[in-house]
Amino acid sequence: MTKIVVIGGGAAGLKAAARARRRDEEAEITVIEAGEYPSMSRCGLPYYIEGLVHEIENLLQTTYGAVRTPEFFKRVKNIDVLTKTKAKRIDREKKVVEIERNGSSDELPYDYLVIATGSKPARPQIPGIDAEGVVHLHSAEDAEKIVEAWEDGAEEAVIIGGGLIGMECAEALSRLDMKVTMVEIMDHILPTLLDAEMAALVKAHLKENGVEVLTGYRVEEIVTDGEAVSGVKIGEKVMPAQLVLIATGVRPNVELAKSAGLEIGETGAIKVNKYLQTSDPSIYAGGDCVENIHILTGKPIYAPLGSTANKHGRVMGDNVTGGKSTFPGVIGTTIFKVFDFTVARTGLTEKEARQLGYDVITAIAPSPDRFHHYPGQKPIRVKIIADKSGKLLGAQAVGLGVVDKRIDVLATAIQMGATIDDVANLDLAYAPPFSMALDTVIVAANIARNKRDGLIESISAEELRKKIESDEDFIILDVRTDEEAEKNPLEDRRVIHIPLDRLRESVDKLPKDREIFTVCQVGARGYEAARFLIQKGFRAKMVEGGMAILGVLVSR
Amino acid sequence: MTKIVVIGGGAAGLKAAARARRRDEEAEITVIEAGEYPSMSRCGLPYYIEGLVHEIENLLQTTYGAVRTPEFFKRVKNIDVLTKTKAKRIDREKKVVEIERNGSSDELPYDYLVIATGSKPARPQIPGIDAEGVVHLHSAEDAEKIVEAWEDGAEEAVIIGGGLIGMECAEALSRLDMKVTMVEIMDHILPTLLDAEMAALVKAHLKENGVEVLTGYRVEEIVTDGEAVSGVKIGEKVMPAQLVLIATGVRPNVELAKSAGLEIGETGAIKVNKYLQTSDPSIYAGGDCVENIHILTGKPIYAPLGSTANKHGRVMGDNVTGGKSTFPGVIGTTIFKVFDFTVARTGLTEKEARQLGYDVITAIAPSPDRFHHYPGQKPIRVKIIADKSGKLLGAQAVGLGVVDKRIDVLATAIQMGATIDDVANLDLAYAPPFSMALDTVIVAANIARNKRDGLIESISAEELRKKIESDEDFIILDVRTDEEAEKNPLEDRRVIHIPLDRLRESVDKLPKDREIFTVCQVGARGYEAARFLIQKGFRAKMVEGGMAILGVLVSR
Repeated sequence: MTKIVVIGGGAAGLKAAARARRRDEEAEITVIEAGEYPSMSRCGLPYYIEGLVHEIENLLQTTYGAVRTPEFFKRVKNIDVLTKTKAKRIDREKKVVEIERNGSSDELPYDYLVIATGSKPARPQIPGIDAEGVVHLHSAEDAEKIVEAWEDGAEEAVIIGGGLIGMECAEALSRLDMKVTMVEIMDHILPTLLDAEMAALVKAHLKENGVEVLTGYRVEEIVTDGEAVSGVKIGEKVMPAQLVLIATGVRPNVELAKSAGLEIGETGAIKVNKYLQTSDPSIYAGGDCVENIHILTGKPIYAPLGSTANKHGRVMGDNVTGGKSTFPGVIGTTIFKVFDFTVARTGLTEKEARQLGYDVITAIAPSPDRFHHYPGQKPIRVKIIADKSGKLLGAQAVGLGVVDKRIDVLATAIQMGATIDDVANLDLAYAPPFSMALDTVIVAANIARNKRDGLIESISAEELRKKIESDEDFIILDVRTDEEAEKNPLEDRRVIHIPLDRLRESVDKLPKDREIFTVCQVGARGYEAARFLIQKGFRAKMVEGGMAILGVLVSR
Repeated sequence: MTKIVVIGGGAAGLKAAARARRRDEEAEITVIEAGEYPSMSRCGLPYYIEGLVHEIENLLQTTYGAVRTPEFFKRVKNIDVLTKTKAKRIDREKKVVEIERNGSSDELPYDYLVIATGSKPARPQIPGIDAEGVVHLHSAEDAEKIVEAWEDGAEEAVIIGGGLIGMECAEALSRLDMKVTMVEIMDHILPTLLDAEMAALVKAHLKENGVEVLTGYRVEEIVTDGEAVSGVKIGEKVMPAQLVLIATGVRPNVELAKSAGLEIGETGAIKVNKYLQTSDPSIYAGGDCVENIHILTGKPIYAPLGSTANKHGRVMGDNVTGGKSTFPGVIGTTIFKVFDFTVARTGLTEKEARQLGYDVITAIAPSPDRFHHYPGQKPIRVKIIADKSGKLLGAQAVGLGVVDKRIDVLATAIQMGATIDDVANLDLAYAPPFSMALDTVIVAANIARNKRDGLIESISAEELRKKIESDEDFIILDVRTDEEAEKNPLEDRRVIHIPLDRLRESVDKLPKDREIFTVCQVGARGYEAARFLIQKGFRAKMVEGGMAILGVLVSR
């Protein structure tokens, strides 16, 4: 009878246990969990704070309403779940885990051990970080603390860190009517997730929703009023705050694995092979405590996610019961909702791709998320990154409309090794309620093909913004309609406005000795204008993403 | 100066013309259109009838509101669009198109010709089909006729044909408060799009929305009251109707191509190579008048779609201006909205795959479309079809929730040659507002892997329904909770109800000599129960899709 011990009752650990049971009815399976609850869905916590998920217990339930208690696991799966139990040490020689439970110690022997110890929030070195009112959002207890602070009258919150958790919490706290300030040390928010121009769209949306966003600022100190937090010192200024959320990422819990002498990877997380086996063949590890291989780069990446943890669980459950399952790695897909925006990315950013030495082509397609006259259509902006051979490397998408579909399609394409030509010819589901006749991802791929094939050159909106701030001479040719240009003007001495349908008759007014950057609302007319001008002997480039991007950059 | 003539001002023709212009500013480009409008978005017509799109002219507009008139094409793209102009004959020797315009004839010389003559509605041989009030939905004029019939007081409509257009119109006419009856000659609706059990879910939704659905019935006659239609004779019964919509599919317009001696394929549409070149190297064809290659089977398929027509247009525009672009084919992806349901498919159906000789594995995953405690989550049912090697062959999805994303991911996977193992490990975007931690497509792939790997066998809900109607002896083990079983009971003498959490203690009550079919609400518990029973020596199979499918089949 195989003895399987699982350390950690989160997604990876419990999935491994349940899968092992389905494959081996006879195995003895024990799960050790330090906390009070097994299998808390941590991803749901921001929605609990916001009030969208009403009871914290909801986050413990199965789809059919059963609560995942130790009793549930025993009755339904014959799995022993020991909560409030700490794994103190792994003795790999004796193959036992030393545990502490209700103050007394014990030993659990194992044939196979699964380490799924998860992650903990990073704690930056900031004076005052231990003050009352300084919180993380990592556990149910953390969520309760935040709700209590609000109930106790906290009206101003500072979020330290402009990443994913920071975003979700900015929305949740704003919905509770708190005044929220977000501080990010890098020069744009979401620095590891998005390129600068896409992040700028998100920042604008945060501002529209009343969140103050400070980028490029270091937090000097958390200021207290005796014990409780009263503000955050950012640069020279103190922002008043009764609640401070530290959202600077998470770190893997590796102490147990490390002290047992298991190999730790360069990311600081446990190193595993494709079977999720650690450097000890009897010990597997998965979930937030391990590093993954990035499928595109072949390099380790620390990318803890609930979806990945679940996949790990299945692989580990197979392999501790005689199977030989593998996990191929990840491509860094991430998504979140912030106010009315959905923000998502997959693969490499343009910045990452350039740092890795790729010769990069990018394309931005702003478009409606469905047929442009179908009710409820909303704008989205999709950016794709490819290398010069056409291989798709990454994608980012933000907007009010349906973004998750586009990123999932592009993630699938990237993982399957697709080129921009493959993407352009995907037989995607078209009807007016679901997309334009050519879906945004196809439009983006076609733009990238035009660039690769030398039909067009482009300037990024960010580059043009910098040029606008300079003294250089060039022409920005705005080919939008009179109405569009009036409603949302682009003001600069170098702007010439000629609507596309008057361009052919007015082309002689344009000088051939200066660079011309053609811009419209979303890019299609700018492309058409540039193609016309190029063929007429002008030096024309289109502005990537049109005013949909440039308009946001120049107005900030 | 290259002379390019395009016959047909729909999506494929105009896209080809516009693309050609962007590549070649000097070419002479002429588009001939028989109708009044160029580039009508036909896919939007049902939404115009329903009132969701208010003006038929909206369907002619670009995303930035410009109306695609001949003047628009001339000014913006320097393309001559001749509307109300008929192409009478192609003289391939002389390389001219004979046209008729305003009653007089003319000749247009070409270097390259693009045929994009589109499709026309099929007209079945039904007595009375020429009566007043019998309509198609293929043109703006058709849509106007339908709206007029409603304005004139039509209260009852019969739709002949249970395919895509029939579905969209069933909704549109119902929203106008008409009593709608749909007649389909095959034994289930959507016979070429969905397998029987998935179509049954759609049928149930039509019924919930007041549409009467008659399957397996031939329309004998359209009955008139003098000139106008008054009813439809279906079997022995006459259904009263003041409006009859013929929705039995479309046929390619190939007369012109045929009389010019161009090769017509086995589907009856124009045959083209991967460059979309006809049997005459100077003549290209695309859009609804050509057949496509099915990427999975390598065989020709007639699958006219606006999305495909747009892709064709780009390829033709390239190739008539010196390019060498190719179109890889299609995989039959289709989607539509009907009332609150979205229905979509891609690749092969189970039936098609079996007919083609594949050794088929199927899996059905019913699940919420996002985290099950996130507000607004709605159910979807995803079916995938794979061959025994694991290669993904097809997918179908229906439900109230987000279905288009899942089909687009699976379409991408199929087109890229993915296996169910690839799908199970896709790094899809997970956050509670967008999916379960393991997206439905991953769950479906995992079920299929379990079947391939021999962990589980299943019985389809449709097979079990047939067994229930027989006298056979077997056991249906309902492992849902007491509440679920009471709320939505499965009544049959062979049903034993033991909730999953009591199965271990009650397993001795079950006989080992009979087949046991385990069923829960969506399948996960049925799977778990079956795995337990199999390991305990019982002959157990899970019911594919659980009560989510079976419940609909037994209640009809």
